[in-house]
Amino acid sequence: MRFGTELMRQADVLGLFSEDTPQITRTYLSEQHKQAGEYLIGLMRRAGMTADFDALGNVVGRYRAAEPKAPVVMTGSHQDSVRNAGKYDGLFGILTAIECVRDLNTRGKRLPYTLEIVGFGDEEGVRFGATLIGSKAMAGSFEPAWLDKADDQGVTMRQALTDFGGDPGGWEAIDRRGRNVVAYVESHIEQGPVLLNEGLAVGVVTAIAGASRLRVDVTGLAGHAGTVPMGSRQDALTAASEMILFVERYCEERTGLVGTVGKIAVAPGAINVIPQDVEFTIDVRSGDNVLRREAVHAFQEGFAEIARRRKVTVTAAPFYAANAAPCDAALQQQFADAIAAHGLPVRHLPSGAGHDAMVFPAVAPTAMLFVRCGNGGISHHPDETMTAEDAETATSVLLHFFEHFDPARFARGRS
Amino acid sequence: MRFGTELMRQADVLGLFSEDTPQITRTYLSEQHKQAGEYLIGLMRRAGMTADFDALGNVVGRYRAAEPKAPVVMTGSHQDSVRNAGKYDGLFGILTAIECVRDLNTRGKRLPYTLEIVGFGDEEGVRFGATLIGSKAMAGSFEPAWLDKADDQGVTMRQALTDFGGDPGGWEAIDRRGRNVVAYVESHIEQGPVLLNEGLAVGVVTAIAGASRLRVDVTGLAGHAGTVPMGSRQDALTAASEMILFVERYCEERTGLVGTVGKIAVAPGAINVIPQDVEFTIDVRSGDNVLRREAVHAFQEGFAEIARRRKVTVTAAPFYAANAAPCDAALQQQFADAIAAHGLPVRHLPSGAGHDAMVFPAVAPTAMLFVRCGNGGISHHPDETMTAEDAETATSVLLHFFEHFDPARFARGRS
Repeated sequence: MRFGTELMRQADVLGLFSEDTPQITRTYLSEQHKQAGEYLIGLMRRAGMTADFDALGNVVGRYRAAEPKAPVVMTGSHQDSVRNAGKYDGLFGILTAIECVRDLNTRGKRLPYTLEIVGFGDEEGVRFGATLIGSKAMAGSFEPAWLDKADDQGVTMRQALTDFGGDPGGWEAIDRRGRNVVAYVESHIEQGPVLLNEGLAVGVVTAIAGASRLRVDVTGLAGHAGTVPMGSRQDALTAASEMILFVERYCEERTGLVGTVGKIAVAPGAINVIPQDVEFTIDVRSGDNVLRREAVHAFQEGFAEIARRRKVTVTAAPFYAANAAPCDAALQQQFADAIAAHGLPVRHLPSGAGHDAMVFPAVAPTAMLFVRCGNGGISHHPDETMTAEDAETATSVLLHFFEHFDPARFARGRS
Repeated sequence: MRFGTELMRQADVLGLFSEDTPQITRTYLSEQHKQAGEYLIGLMRRAGMTADFDALGNVVGRYRAAEPKAPVVMTGSHQDSVRNAGKYDGLFGILTAIECVRDLNTRGKRLPYTLEIVGFGDEEGVRFGATLIGSKAMAGSFEPAWLDKADDQGVTMRQALTDFGGDPGGWEAIDRRGRNVVAYVESHIEQGPVLLNEGLAVGVVTAIAGASRLRVDVTGLAGHAGTVPMGSRQDALTAASEMILFVERYCEERTGLVGTVGKIAVAPGAINVIPQDVEFTIDVRSGDNVLRREAVHAFQEGFAEIARRRKVTVTAAPFYAANAAPCDAALQQQFADAIAAHGLPVRHLPSGAGHDAMVFPAVAPTAMLFVRCGNGGISHHPDETMTAEDAETATSVLLHFFEHFDPARFARGRS
C-alpha cells in the first residue's frame, strides 16, 4: 500500500501522545498537544512543506505553489480529542493530507495553488468549554472572551497559550477571510455506521447537520401506586414515554433526520408513587434546516395532543439551534468524480456530528470526505477503528481531488 | 350531626401533635406520639372505656361486654404518619370507633362482646424502617430483631421504647392470637379517587392488594446522537418507553390491577448520546394474586419481545412480592348491610394501599370500611381531605355494624 500502512502507524504514534495512556486524551494546549504538533510538523517538513505552530497552537503546513500569488486551498482537521477517545477522529484528516503532499513532493509535482494543511488545536472543547477554537479563529469567529475561560485547574486559556509558546493576542492575524482561500476540504472518519452498513470505504458529505435542542417538562399528578385506578391517573412518565416514541417514529419516517432523547429525570421518583414531573431533552439534527424546524414544530404539536389526551401539561422549549452547514455542490462533485475514478460507487451522506469544516463557509466553499468507521460506527471511544485499506482508498481519492482541483473555477474566495 | 363535626375537630387537634407543625409528621415513639396517645386515651376513658398504652406504645381501649368471658372484636388503625401527612390517614379509624363507643355508652348500651379499639403506634415505618410494628406485634408477626434497628439519630427502637415508657420485652405478651378475638374491622380513608368519582361516602373493601415489585434493566448501545441513523440504533430509552406503555396498557385492560413505573434512570445520560442503559422499577398490585402473578409474567414476556425486536437486552427481576389479604366475606356482608340500612348504594372495592388490617387474618376474620377521600383522592399529603358529612355517615355505618354484629356467628377466633 502507498499510504494505508504508514497512516495506521502514524495514528498509533499519535495515540501515544496522551494525557492518560493507555487511554487517549489530548486536550488543547497540553504537553501532549505540543508533542503531537511537533510530530506533525516533522512529518510536514519531511513531506516538503514549511510548517510551524501558529499563535493559537494550530499546526500549519504549506505546500507552496510555484506561483507565489497562487490561491490557497485549505485542508486538515483537529489534533485534540475527547476524553478516552479513538485514534482517527480528527487526526486522520491531517495525516491523510500530509501523505498526499509527501506523494506529490516525491514526484516533484507542484499544484496550481498553495495547499495549506492545518492541525487545529481545539475542536472538541474539552479543556476550556469553547469548541472549535482553532478553526473559528481562522474563520473569523473567534471570541476574545474565551481567553479568560479557565480549565478545571483554574488556568486561563490566555495563560495556557503563553505557556504553550503561543500568542493570546494573535488570534486576529490568523483569520483566513480575504486571504485568497478558494476552498476548504476536510477528510474525517464518519463516526457513524452508514458507510459500514453499505460496504463503502468513502462517501461525500452533503452538509454538516444543523441541530436543535429542546427541554421538555411534563407535569401530571402524583398519586399512590396502589390506590389510584389506571383510568384516574395523570402519570407524567407514561405521557413522556409516549412522547419519546413520538420523536422516534417521526424521525424514522423521514430521511435525513435523527432525534434523540438522551436524558430523563422523574419526580418524586419513588417506586410506589405515580410520577408527577418528568423532564427530558431532545437533540434533533438534519442537514436540512426546514426538515429540522418542521420536526421541532411537530414535536411540540404532537406532545400537546398527547398531553391533552392524558390530562397532563407539557412545555417543549428549544434552548439551542444551529443551522446546517451545506457543503459546496461543485466541491462535492469533485469528490464524487475522484471516487468514481477509483471505480467506487458514490454515496452522498450528511454529517450528523459537527466538524471544523462547519465554520469554513465564512472563508471559502467547503466540502468533506467521509471514511468508513468500523465496529458498528462507534467513535469518541477506544473501540473506534479504521482499516489500512480504507485509509489507502481515502488518501488516494483525496490526492485525486488535489491533483484535479482547478482553482480558477473557485477563484472567488470569500471575504 | 351526631359525630361528623366532633370528628373533624378531633382530627384537627391530633394534627397539631406534629414534629414539624404546620406540617404533620408523627413518628413512632416520638413526643408527639405520646401526646396523641394521651389525647386518645382521654377520649376513650371519657367514652366509657378502660384505656392505656401497651408495651409497644399502642393505645388500647376496651369497652367491656357485660359478660366477662365474652369474645373480643378489635377495631382501630394507626396513630403515626408519613412525613408531611394528611389528618385522616390512620387516625380516622381510631376516632370513629371511639365515637361509636361514646354513643353506645351514652345510651347505656353494652354489646355482646368486648370492643377493643387500638391506636397502633407504627404502621408507616418512617422512623425505624420496619412497617406495621404495632399491628404485627398484636398479630404474632413481630420480629425481635427490629428492636435493634436505629433511627436517623442512632437511637435504637429498644432505647426509644424504654424512653417512651414502654417495655421492649413486652411484644410477645400483646399477641392477640388465641385470645378469643372473633373479628378485626378497620375504618380508613380510601386514599384514592374511586368513591369520590362515583359520588359515594363509603365502600366495603374486598381485599388489601398484594404487590410485586420488579427492577428492569434494558441494555442497548450508546452512540452519537448526530451520526447514527434511526434504523441503526439500539436505544435503551425508546425500548424502555415502549415497555412502560406496555405496563400501562396491560393494567388498563384488566379490572383490579394497577401498575406503576415510578423510577427511571438512564446512562450515560448525555443530551447528545443515545442511551445505552436504562433501569426502571415496576410496582404492580391487585387484590387477586393470580391476576398479579400473570401480570408479572406478561411483563417479562412482553419486554422480551420488545427487546428482541429492538435489538436490546432486558432483564425484569422481581425483588419483592406480598400476597393479597382478602377480607372476610361474612364481615363484608355485615358492612354491606349496614350501608344498605342507611339507604346508600353498596360499593365493593379493593384497597391498593397496605393497612394494619392486612396482618390480622392471622388473628381473626378481617374487614375494612373505606371513607371517601376528597381532592382527587390525594393522601400522604397535606391536601388530604374528608368531609364532616362523610365522617358522620361512616361512623353511623360502623355503629350499625357494631350494634348488629353477632359474635356467635364468628366464634372461631384463630390461634
